[in-house]
Amino acid sequence: MDYGATTPVDPNIITAMRPFFEKTFGNPSSIHSYGIDASEMISESRQHVASIIGAHEDEIIFSSGGTESDNLAIKGIAYKHLDKRKTKGPHILTSVIEHPAVLEPIRYLEKLGFSIAYIPVDSTGLIDPKQVEETISENTFLVSIMTANNEIGTIEPIRDIGRITKRHGVLFHTDAVQAIGKVPLDVKKDSIDLLSLSSHKMYGPKGVGALYVKEPVRLEPLFHGGGHEKGMRSGTLNTPGIIGLGKACKLARNRFEKDTKHLEKLRDTLIKNVLQIEESYLNGHPTKRLVNNAHFRFAAIEGESLHMMLDREGIAAATGSACSSKKLKPSHVLLALGLTPEESHGSIRFSIGRTSTIEDIEYVSEKMMPIVESLRKMSPLWNKEEITR
Amino acid sequence: MDYGATTPVDPNIITAMRPFFEKTFGNPSSIHSYGIDASEMISESRQHVASIIGAHEDEIIFSSGGTESDNLAIKGIAYKHLDKRKTKGPHILTSVIEHPAVLEPIRYLEKLGFSIAYIPVDSTGLIDPKQVEETISENTFLVSIMTANNEIGTIEPIRDIGRITKRHGVLFHTDAVQAIGKVPLDVKKDSIDLLSLSSHKMYGPKGVGALYVKEPVRLEPLFHGGGHEKGMRSGTLNTPGIIGLGKACKLARNRFEKDTKHLEKLRDTLIKNVLQIEESYLNGHPTKRLVNNAHFRFAAIEGESLHMMLDREGIAAATGSACSSKKLKPSHVLLALGLTPEESHGSIRFSIGRTSTIEDIEYVSEKMMPIVESLRKMSPLWNKEEITR
Repeated sequence: MDYGATTPVDPNIITAMRPFFEKTFGNPSSIHSYGIDASEMISESRQHVASIIGAHEDEIIFSSGGTESDNLAIKGIAYKHLDKRKTKGPHILTSVIEHPAVLEPIRYLEKLGFSIAYIPVDSTGLIDPKQVEETISENTFLVSIMTANNEIGTIEPIRDIGRITKRHGVLFHTDAVQAIGKVPLDVKKDSIDLLSLSSHKMYGPKGVGALYVKEPVRLEPLFHGGGHEKGMRSGTLNTPGIIGLGKACKLARNRFEKDTKHLEKLRDTLIKNVLQIEESYLNGHPTKRLVNNAHFRFAAIEGESLHMMLDREGIAAATGSACSSKKLKPSHVLLALGLTPEESHGSIRFSIGRTSTIEDIEYVSEKMMPIVESLRKMSPLWNKEEITR
Repeated sequence: MDYGATTPVDPNIITAMRPFFEKTFGNPSSIHSYGIDASEMISESRQHVASIIGAHEDEIIFSSGGTESDNLAIKGIAYKHLDKRKTKGPHILTSVIEHPAVLEPIRYLEKLGFSIAYIPVDSTGLIDPKQVEETISENTFLVSIMTANNEIGTIEPIRDIGRITKRHGVLFHTDAVQAIGKVPLDVKKDSIDLLSLSSHKMYGPKGVGALYVKEPVRLEPLFHGGGHEKGMRSGTLNTPGIIGLGKACKLARNRFEKDTKHLEKLRDTLIKNVLQIEESYLNGHPTKRLVNNAHFRFAAIEGESLHMMLDREGIAAATGSACSSKKLKPSHVLLALGLTPEESHGSIRFSIGRTSTIEDIEYVSEKMMPIVESLRKMSPLWNKEEITR
């Protein structure tokens, strides 16, 4: 129940990667046969990645994952605008619920002198495009808003935001790490200039991702070196990883209807079942949410304890995102929805996947009720009279 | 004959990685059983990587490869010293023969206002430690000198340089990407503060590497985000890749004597055979060179043509490094030795590996003579009288 943190690699993808470890192992930059064979297969992967978002293969830069793609997009643009730091008005717009891989590089840029505007969200996690438009100043050069939130699963009005940034001549980056394969995306129709994606969230291997960079946008690289990837990302290409990502995109594209239908059905069953628990709530948007995400809040419950009890029953869930789950701070996303720190701590994320079954959902649903009850028995906060929500 | 560009992955390493794609696939940051299982195995890999260079496991940061490690080391330190840009004297010392993954980030820092000193080499590619010492100024905070050169294979006097940087309180980074497993290294005895290594040059998978960062040195991250790797490198850890790198380090350590003995014998046979060709020369140092490197220069020969003829015979060699082999510029390393652009273009690198055999060496030796002769027959430069070297 934690496919949002990572997915197992699809067996077909493992098979597709295999020859590139041992047989077609040449350095794709080498100009002998070994290198050329690898290079040709990378080109095919680039097409698969481009296809899933409606881009051209020349617009795909391979990276080591979502965090690198986000950092490269944001700093890569900002470093080209170092002079603008002296100007007034927000240079970069982002939302308060972005993933740390977007928020942290932006906070770093803020320390370097860039002015940042953080767009708030409503109680379901939605961003208002009008507010984006009103916040853009003449010195704004970048808007970074995620396609769908990794914790609560809310899907943002990307197309509306893209229309606005395009009209104002501002670059638009979207972190689509959680959305790829679950939300239909088309960088041209959605007016997206930069899009981050990661392989290990879509049944591909860890350690590889991609950044779509619309032609003719150019980035200052994070890795200077041999000049790979049009000079924007140096370093020997990770052939097996890239083959895996390509295959993952191809599979996700072919299976889109089947996957989303399956996930939606399971998700809705899970939500229906869990909400039968007294004083339980769904965090995020009721309909504009990822097909695989169900995020709950329980009055008078400590999420960490719930998480632990579930783990004992063989159920892997998440409190916060995996990326920050070792920290004890309340989720910045849940606080942004207007929840109190206590309410945030009483939340848990279930995220299902391609191999989840209706039996899994029934098992989790059955286990939840007694676990929540037993935790509440021990909770000093569980006093029916005081809870008035 | 191009193991210096990349190596196939050892079958034992593929087997070791396999379960981490499908079975132990949890996000190592997750606090449920799936995550903890992955996290424990990563810790074991960290120990293997630390062991091969005499470091402590807490001093190993996993990266996506050599280029990232070099960029992280150099920019990570420089960005902590942004204020120093205003001071006089060289802030960073490096050599003229570094890999582009070191030279290019340093050139970028030069554009940002840092003052750089480029230490020259002698005709064999050796750096004089005395010259390093004389060039250090009171504002120098980093020296970056490679352990062994990737093109000509010259091994630098790392320990002497480390002694000097330690005495002057300057941090010492070494790019050991080509040296690991071939040159004995001990970060404590060699007084190294930062060391880059890459998995795919030592029979591990592509897309993973490591940076040794001596405690308590801290770097400004290139990837800001979830705070992984002590906050110095955010991003979901590439479990299978890291397992592969760990296993590669363990294997390389266990096989060190066997590997170096084998490689040295093959390399020396190749050098002896090839130098029987008229007007052929060995580039680099006669003895202080990587056990797997043989780099030759032939009068009146175009390296690209030689390379192509060899490829037709099933022999993969390299002109320049793979990282820049698609460019037609003469190698900066060969020019630094004092060779003319023509001499540089008449050079070729053979780099052998663990699975190379004496039959391979004999095959290459046999093919070389007629190929060089046939190319010279077509060369307008091949006029015995004019060549007086």
